[in-house]
Amino acid sequence: MKLHSLLYITGQFLVALSLTMLIPLFLDLEEHNPDWQAFILSAVLTALSGILMIAAFRGEIIQLSLKQGFILTNLIWISCCLFGALPLAQADLGLSYTDAFFETVSGLTTTGSTIFTDLEQLPPGIILWRSILQWIGGIGVVFMVIILMPFLKVSGMQLFRIESSDTHEKPAERTHKLMGKIALWYVFLTVACFLFYRLSGMGFLDAMNHAMTTLSTGGFSPYNSSVGYFDSVAISWVAISFMILGSLPFTFYLFLSSPFKKKPPLSQIKGFLSLVALLSLFTTAYLLVSQHGGFGHSLTSATFHVVSLITTTGYALEDYGLWGHPAVGLLFMVTFIGGCSGSTAGGIKIFRFQIMGQYFSNMLQSLYLPKKISVNLFNNQRVDETVIAGVILYFSIYFLSLLIMTFLLSLTGLDFITSISSAATAIANVGPGLGDMVGPAGNFAGLSDTAKWIMVAGMILGRLEFLSVMVIFTPAFWRA
Amino acid sequence: MKLHSLLYITGQFLVALSLTMLIPLFLDLEEHNPDWQAFILSAVLTALSGILMIAAFRGEIIQLSLKQGFILTNLIWISCCLFGALPLAQADLGLSYTDAFFETVSGLTTTGSTIFTDLEQLPPGIILWRSILQWIGGIGVVFMVIILMPFLKVSGMQLFRIESSDTHEKPAERTHKLMGKIALWYVFLTVACFLFYRLSGMGFLDAMNHAMTTLSTGGFSPYNSSVGYFDSVAISWVAISFMILGSLPFTFYLFLSSPFKKKPPLSQIKGFLSLVALLSLFTTAYLLVSQHGGFGHSLTSATFHVVSLITTTGYALEDYGLWGHPAVGLLFMVTFIGGCSGSTAGGIKIFRFQIMGQYFSNMLQSLYLPKKISVNLFNNQRVDETVIAGVILYFSIYFLSLLIMTFLLSLTGLDFITSISSAATAIANVGPGLGDMVGPAGNFAGLSDTAKWIMVAGMILGRLEFLSVMVIFTPAFWRA
Repeated sequence: MKLHSLLYITGQFLVALSLTMLIPLFLDLEEHNPDWQAFILSAVLTALSGILMIAAFRGEIIQLSLKQGFILTNLIWISCCLFGALPLAQADLGLSYTDAFFETVSGLTTTGSTIFTDLEQLPPGIILWRSILQWIGGIGVVFMVIILMPFLKVSGMQLFRIESSDTHEKPAERTHKLMGKIALWYVFLTVACFLFYRLSGMGFLDAMNHAMTTLSTGGFSPYNSSVGYFDSVAISWVAISFMILGSLPFTFYLFLSSPFKKKPPLSQIKGFLSLVALLSLFTTAYLLVSQHGGFGHSLTSATFHVVSLITTTGYALEDYGLWGHPAVGLLFMVTFIGGCSGSTAGGIKIFRFQIMGQYFSNMLQSLYLPKKISVNLFNNQRVDETVIAGVILYFSIYFLSLLIMTFLLSLTGLDFITSISSAATAIANVGPGLGDMVGPAGNFAGLSDTAKWIMVAGMILGRLEFLSVMVIFTPAFWRA
Repeated sequence: MKLHSLLYITGQFLVALSLTMLIPLFLDLEEHNPDWQAFILSAVLTALSGILMIAAFRGEIIQLSLKQGFILTNLIWISCCLFGALPLAQADLGLSYTDAFFETVSGLTTTGSTIFTDLEQLPPGIILWRSILQWIGGIGVVFMVIILMPFLKVSGMQLFRIESSDTHEKPAERTHKLMGKIALWYVFLTVACFLFYRLSGMGFLDAMNHAMTTLSTGGFSPYNSSVGYFDSVAISWVAISFMILGSLPFTFYLFLSSPFKKKPPLSQIKGFLSLVALLSLFTTAYLLVSQHGGFGHSLTSATFHVVSLITTTGYALEDYGLWGHPAVGLLFMVTFIGGCSGSTAGGIKIFRFQIMGQYFSNMLQSLYLPKKISVNLFNNQRVDETVIAGVILYFSIYFLSLLIMTFLLSLTGLDFITSISSAATAIANVGPGLGDMVGPAGNFAGLSDTAKWIMVAGMILGRLEFLSVMVIFTPAFWRA
């Protein structure tokens, strides 16, 4: 089994996680907030566990088998969620471990659903920790999707294998280089977002928190009314811009900084931006007609909420649940779409709609021209059959999971609209649901513990593209 | 193009349709109801149109091409819906043509959604005509699914091709024989259902109406409170039994009456009956705990509603919308399942879940054992790749259509729960939706005309397995 190597790698991740706990620790120390004790305790616990694992399982890292790849993916995510919840559980917030775990999973999966009823009562260290969780989760997803998923060939992700132009590089060396470049871009974009927020009049800490949760398309905010708190057109548009930048494939940025002037793959980006523009304009027009607001306000608010939901961020400027039934229907649909693959965004993702659309159109043609062979193209390259199968299966699994989760949530006593929108928001990693309880003006505090654990499962399933989690729950996997 | 032959065949269908209009005509004449004039006018119009088409396009029927097969399928359904609506539009009911068309499509697709606010005010001829529409629709679907769909290879339906044991038969001769046998079984089961209803205390006309709408899993009832009107345990169980019989593949009945004792294909039937038993028991237990009713009443009501929704009939004994959130969640999920393929039932259908489940499990295994080749089996026979692709695509198309229809319905101003449940009930051909307006105690009268036409499109798409309708809306189809 060679679980050794996997635990060794996981140990390294835990040590890294413990280091990030030092940032809110210093903030709370400086603000003379007693919560620093929770952070130091959590950091020590996490670091110790990590170091123990490293020490116990030290050894040469072997080339991962597919099976080990799946175990590792789940192991790292679950460990980070378990230990990342420690500060929330130990701080003096009166949270149960279920609540702390829910909030952490919501953070690391960049979902952004919260169980806090009053965010503005929270100490600054805890607020910062929530933002850091999303920021870590964001880059974690980008790493996973660009490096690990193409190797695991889950749900059509093998489409995004990056070919090395330099054949002399060893795979491990190449991977490290790639991770370094991605991290650099991620930090650069976060700092840029921070600066723009500052220029638009945000305070230092607010800008730091929002930059981290914008770029990771996470959507945690220190304020109950989310970005609406600032009531600023400038801030809204900075958020819009960086939510979009966070939803573009990071491989695109790598192309921008590459010395070789190869043509970057633009299929997803073109599709995504056209869709965002179309839906924003449609919603603006709807708001102009139905809410009789000014053009500027309608354009900002419509674009903000379309972008916030399609990028699966989940920020809100106002309670769009009050915009009337057509808007609610539209925004529910938008929840499913998601950003580009290879970004921090969740949802079904643009490339799957593009491949699905082409396949569907070819399938229709094959019904009356059975002998004609059609080819599926993506970024001008032929798409493999297994990619197509993975993509169509993904759609089916996505919707069947949604149905089953809706049913399970309704069993806990939630009404239909709360159940279905909570299920949809969890598996798409968006954040807010629909209805009075979990809508953009509500939170998930009122859910039963059972419902919270169902949501946790949904958020992790959605974030890890379903199959990579489901596979480890089959008995045959462990026998193989 | 050879549209000639297609119009010639459609003409024959119209003449047959006009003959069925004579039954309510005689009933209204006997009851001295002025509506007999609407029926005679409609019958004459329909017969004339049919005869004209036959006369104009008379000629040898050529072997259909795939393209012609698709055009014919749509042509027959649309023509029958258009002419079938005539009696409703011409009778003195104050209906708009939209309403008459909605009710007819709901009938012929065996959906069972109604736009009548008070069924008990309707003249007996109109009530009978609604039942006849469902009865015709039921056998129409069985014919289409057993004979035409395997030839058109839509959404995995090629799985159900019937091999002839007698190689001397000509295809046309074989088809006619097959249709005759199916029709015989359909009539036999309807008569049996009628007799059982009579034995359980139903009146002659009620038994006739209900037998036709039970076996076709249509669900139209002459009473506002549906089968609940009779408040009879015996009648409820007769309905349960014949809704199930209507949802079994008619090829199974053909095996029963076949002189060759070949083993009938039982995969779907076993899966369907187990699922019905499981869901009924679960719902019974839920009702016992939550509603504190007696065991007998809970068992009858739970089984009745599970069967009514899974078979996509849509009868009701009581307003299950009042059973609490968990029941609503469960019954919403059941709406999607459907009966067996080759029956009168709608929904996704059992065989697709079985093939999907196997494919999913094989796909999971291939993630960590990429070299192992797994085979998909159905009724102990290998399932072709194109069947699997058709099935998975069907799931995706089903759910994407649901999303888009929900959005379109919400644009007409309907609230979220009404929109999504109306969309779900239309494409699954079930009947009632959820919520105060379109729930089991409501009706579709309050929908705007636009919403009604969206529902009509959904009912036809669902009934014709999506692709066979969608294909004729592609420009390439007409150029090919």
